[in-house]
Amino acid sequence: MSTELWYTERYEEHGAALSLKIREVLHREQSPHQTIEIFETERFGTLMTLDGLVMVTDRDNFLYHEMMSHPALFTHPAPKRVLIIGGGDCGTLREVLRHREVEEVVQVELDERVTRVAERFFPALCEKNGDARARFHFADGITWVKEAEAGRYDVIIVDSTDPVGPAAGLFAMDFYAACHHALADRGVLVAQSESPLLHAELIRQCQQRMTEAGFDAVNSVYFPQFCYPSGWWSGTLGRKGLAMEAFRAADAQAFTGTQYYHAGMHHAAQVAPAFLLP
Amino acid sequence: MSTELWYTERYEEHGAALSLKIREVLHREQSPHQTIEIFETERFGTLMTLDGLVMVTDRDNFLYHEMMSHPALFTHPAPKRVLIIGGGDCGTLREVLRHREVEEVVQVELDERVTRVAERFFPALCEKNGDARARFHFADGITWVKEAEAGRYDVIIVDSTDPVGPAAGLFAMDFYAACHHALADRGVLVAQSESPLLHAELIRQCQQRMTEAGFDAVNSVYFPQFCYPSGWWSGTLGRKGLAMEAFRAADAQAFTGTQYYHAGMHHAAQVAPAFLLP
Repeated sequence: MSTELWYTERYEEHGAALSLKIREVLHREQSPHQTIEIFETERFGTLMTLDGLVMVTDRDNFLYHEMMSHPALFTHPAPKRVLIIGGGDCGTLREVLRHREVEEVVQVELDERVTRVAERFFPALCEKNGDARARFHFADGITWVKEAEAGRYDVIIVDSTDPVGPAAGLFAMDFYAACHHALADRGVLVAQSESPLLHAELIRQCQQRMTEAGFDAVNSVYFPQFCYPSGWWSGTLGRKGLAMEAFRAADAQAFTGTQYYHAGMHHAAQVAPAFLLP
Repeated sequence: MSTELWYTERYEEHGAALSLKIREVLHREQSPHQTIEIFETERFGTLMTLDGLVMVTDRDNFLYHEMMSHPALFTHPAPKRVLIIGGGDCGTLREVLRHREVEEVVQVELDERVTRVAERFFPALCEKNGDARARFHFADGITWVKEAEAGRYDVIIVDSTDPVGPAAGLFAMDFYAACHHALADRGVLVAQSESPLLHAELIRQCQQRMTEAGFDAVNSVYFPQFCYPSGWWSGTLGRKGLAMEAFRAADAQAFTGTQYYHAGMHHAAQVAPAFLLP
């Protein structure tokens, strides 16, 4: 019997843990911001962790990346200028760049090393990094949004880590207010908002804070995501000058190549579980 | 630092594992069919495992039990006679008995000990076991369905374990054909059909076999379920003499007390991910 190697992420406060069987440790480095590790798993392809927390695996990242981008982009009537806060693995960026009407994507990731490591170990996620519409900045996302001119973006995607450490400010009311200011009229904000099962109160807070920050129609999208705590995840959407139902249905129907999202999923994914109904 | 106790279920063929932190082992027995264990977890309440596989926890069983019952029951125009195959923990039975139009529920579980242990350790799930409409049989479900008279039931719910061992026959075409025969016209079958992420091919097979068995409109419901492999689960629905859209919307809207399912979720949960679209 040979030695077995397992990566385990403990969800300490929830008394649970997820483990993935590992073939090999491919890379490990201490960036100025965090420990970045890359593993070759047995069945989930390549895995990236930051400070010991799963960020992305080859096998199931499509769920998160599609659901953090397409619902917001098909809610907007004509998304041309997109801002991504975080998103260092570039999977969300790739999905955004699949929209032909998008003319410019500004990605503001705190840790340049995450993107450089992703370029090496997740070439599929980074396959559009050379697209002329993509602009990379390695800087603090909160400052970036606060300093943005009014109405600069059509869509803002907050593809952040959990609300601890530097990412905590990304869940605050004044950050959402800054996003509202940086969005043009008919703008859409989407922010990752953790697990419905484990963090229902945080989802309610996100919705409440976006509403207080001036967004007109706020709700969440819900989707499965095995490698994040509880296997069930959410993004919370704020619409500026758009109705809750706003949706470019015909464009979504013509959109192909996704694995999870499709036109029929657009509204279905926005149906809250009974325990999160307003 | 005190000793930590963790229960771990390995999803061997998927190179993954789920662990729950345990306070105490409450019960362990070898029934004629399997090893039944009961644990008090740190954050998920009471946990039951069968042969080392998670069956139910207090905290997240509502997802599975609601989604294995209410979509099928609100698809049927007037469900009076319901058959549950398996379902020994009685959580599905409880949900079915919340429907006032139901006059009789026959539950056929192979292992009486599962139900007796559930009565002791999951009193909430078993709170309706004394309902005069409930009838318990501890017998083989496949034989039960094959020997049922034609048109005997309005709804059949297959609340089974994984398709290995005695439960393998519950995923076979001739079992679905026997269910079709045992259902009255305008009857509904729902069978648990594993994880969309890990067992997409099995879901396709279930759908295909139900269609070959004579069901008129076949699709699946998808829902989160942390404690089952991948945190994402499905049930597959076959309708006999009913359209895909059949739904008692007004009755579902008047139905209260659920934590996940509600009228707005009925069709939303039936939207397949892009990779499982027909």
